[in-house]
Amino acid sequence: MKLGRLNHIGVATPSIEESIHYYRDVMGAINIREPFDMEEQGVKVCFVDTPGYDGTSGTQIELIEPLGADSPIHGFLAKNPAGGQHHLCYEVEDIDDARKWFEELGKRILGPTRIGAHGTPIFFLHPKDMMGQLTEIMQTPEGDGYWSN
Amino acid sequence: MKLGRLNHIGVATPSIEESIHYYRDVMGAINIREPFDMEEQGVKVCFVDTPGYDGTSGTQIELIEPLGADSPIHGFLAKNPAGGQHHLCYEVEDIDDARKWFEELGKRILGPTRIGAHGTPIFFLHPKDMMGQLTEIMQTPEGDGYWSN
Repeated sequence: MKLGRLNHIGVATPSIEESIHYYRDVMGAINIREPFDMEEQGVKVCFVDTPGYDGTSGTQIELIEPLGADSPIHGFLAKNPAGGQHHLCYEVEDIDDARKWFEELGKRILGPTRIGAHGTPIFFLHPKDMMGQLTEIMQTPEGDGYWSN
Repeated sequence: MKLGRLNHIGVATPSIEESIHYYRDVMGAINIREPFDMEEQGVKVCFVDTPGYDGTSGTQIELIEPLGADSPIHGFLAKNPAGGQHHLCYEVEDIDDARKWFEELGKRILGPTRIGAHGTPIFFLHPKDMMGQLTEIMQTPEGDGYWSN
């Protein structure tokens, strides 16, 4: 496997509304997408764009807020009430090849391959097998590579 | 202030040697820089490059291993023995303007502005004032914007 683009950093938050205020008014973010619910994952999600080099889009920040009583984010926020860095997401060209690669290395994959927040297939790997980093692998989405503000 | 490029993600590790093996042989990283000591900061550092869009360099991973008995990373590793995500670093055009911006917002700045691992001035902000994210602000380094492998 070849290391792909760092598509986004997942950041857990007790309140996307408060995080939007923080990213806009403290950090100076310009492009903040519309929040949306991912009910099957138990999260509300909002992407903050960051600029890359030379007019390209950089790594996004994915804000994730618990949705519902069974949200997997509750445990993280119990330990980190203010929120914080939750996962790293790398792109791959082919999700099935990547799944096979990690399976053959004996890495624990958390659940089936499913459709993620960008509409392309994704899966997560157990942080204990990934040097402490909860790692999402996603098939590269099309387009959207250029920064505008 | 205007949100700058996400220059790197700091990832603490008990062993840069082991992390290099992980990033190269598990994640498929190609460009891994030479590790070096930052004695004043109490850390050994190693940068892993990731690709950005369209032939540009993406956000780097900064591996940080404790150096010496007083390293500030020991506390993080005591809580996270396998390592994990430690900080986020954003670029700004002018470090003095950025410092003044955060000071006026009442954000706690951790120590003086100093020269960071890329040779440009940096400072850190307290995670409790930054929605749980230990945040490094660095003045944009010159050059080095293009990915090669």
